[in-house]
Amino acid sequence: MQVAIVLYPGFTSMDVIGPYEVFGRLPDTDVVFVAERPGLVVNDLRSLSINAVAGLADVPSPDMVLIGGGPGQAGQMADGNLHEWLRTVDRTSAWTTSVCTGSLILAAAGVLKGRRATTHWAMLENLAEFGVTPSKERVVIDGHYVTGAGVSAGIDMALTLAGLIAGDDMAQTVQLIIEYAPQPPYHVGSLDTAPPEVVENAWRVMSA
Amino acid sequence: MQVAIVLYPGFTSMDVIGPYEVFGRLPDTDVVFVAERPGLVVNDLRSLSINAVAGLADVPSPDMVLIGGGPGQAGQMADGNLHEWLRTVDRTSAWTTSVCTGSLILAAAGVLKGRRATTHWAMLENLAEFGVTPSKERVVIDGHYVTGAGVSAGIDMALTLAGLIAGDDMAQTVQLIIEYAPQPPYHVGSLDTAPPEVVENAWRVMSA
Repeated sequence: MQVAIVLYPGFTSMDVIGPYEVFGRLPDTDVVFVAERPGLVVNDLRSLSINAVAGLADVPSPDMVLIGGGPGQAGQMADGNLHEWLRTVDRTSAWTTSVCTGSLILAAAGVLKGRRATTHWAMLENLAEFGVTPSKERVVIDGHYVTGAGVSAGIDMALTLAGLIAGDDMAQTVQLIIEYAPQPPYHVGSLDTAPPEVVENAWRVMSA
Repeated sequence: MQVAIVLYPGFTSMDVIGPYEVFGRLPDTDVVFVAERPGLVVNDLRSLSINAVAGLADVPSPDMVLIGGGPGQAGQMADGNLHEWLRTVDRTSAWTTSVCTGSLILAAAGVLKGRRATTHWAMLENLAEFGVTPSKERVVIDGHYVTGAGVSAGIDMALTLAGLIAGDDMAQTVQLIIEYAPQPPYHVGSLDTAPPEVVENAWRVMSA
């Protein structure tokens, strides 16, 4: 199985590294980091660069495609090479997946039309602009589309999908290897549980 | 605050990216990825390279140092430049931290002697060889040493430490921004909950 993980300037690193750590451990799986052109791609915080070893054209038919989100998503909403590539690979992919606002890019490319999907809580309603039904679930599976909510939700998305692809035994083995028994120090990680002042702070920080 | 995140060949990416995503969002914080020499550093799965923008000698006194784990940890246990650097920066750092088997490198460098610490479940007892008291907790704070358990535990470690550094309000804001309200698909992420066959599979996969 070939998994193509799409990078673009301003991506949020955990969006892609969470699922990478899961998918990269499945048997007979090759992960390739792709970008419009091969080379270093700088993230949203501008202090991390990941090497894209392939350009989009070098990976014409991955079995799975994953696109993450981040502030840079806003720069990937216009039709062009990336959208065309997403539409093309989606026709033959077994799974087309996203984390966070990556789903907005899939939506803008047109591939999620008529589907249910999720994204980062701050952008959830924006999915509707593209004919996509927003869902507040952390992981949404609709056909061969699998979308995760914001940033850290990619881990849950990937383990859920790993179970479908490689079986519960293998997904559980990966979950134990990455010691994923989370103990968040606060109970504020979603809109349902965060107090209003934390939500307000988050909006302020994200808009800065 | 300057945070130095140490890379070495064969690192596990989520070990460092989890905490990076948290620390990188704290106010007035600069994160620098360092390695023995600047340049691309390849991870354990050999399909990801992160760019180390600085060599160890370029970052002589970070306020925080973080070292992750991974199979490559075994190659970093001998005394040498990295250990010398760790001992030196630890003398002035506000926080010396690790995720997963990164704590074994700190231990081998001698800085954790007499302290309590944690690491990946598979290697927990190895800490004792270096005069460190192993703890099964997911996050251990002892003095200015903060260690996290395996791989994904770095997120919990970093949010806990972010609360101490920047206050609960800021740590909670970051937790909401990264939508960290985990919903693991299985209840098998630690030795306490994983059934014996999953533990056996994990050992087999990790030894392959």
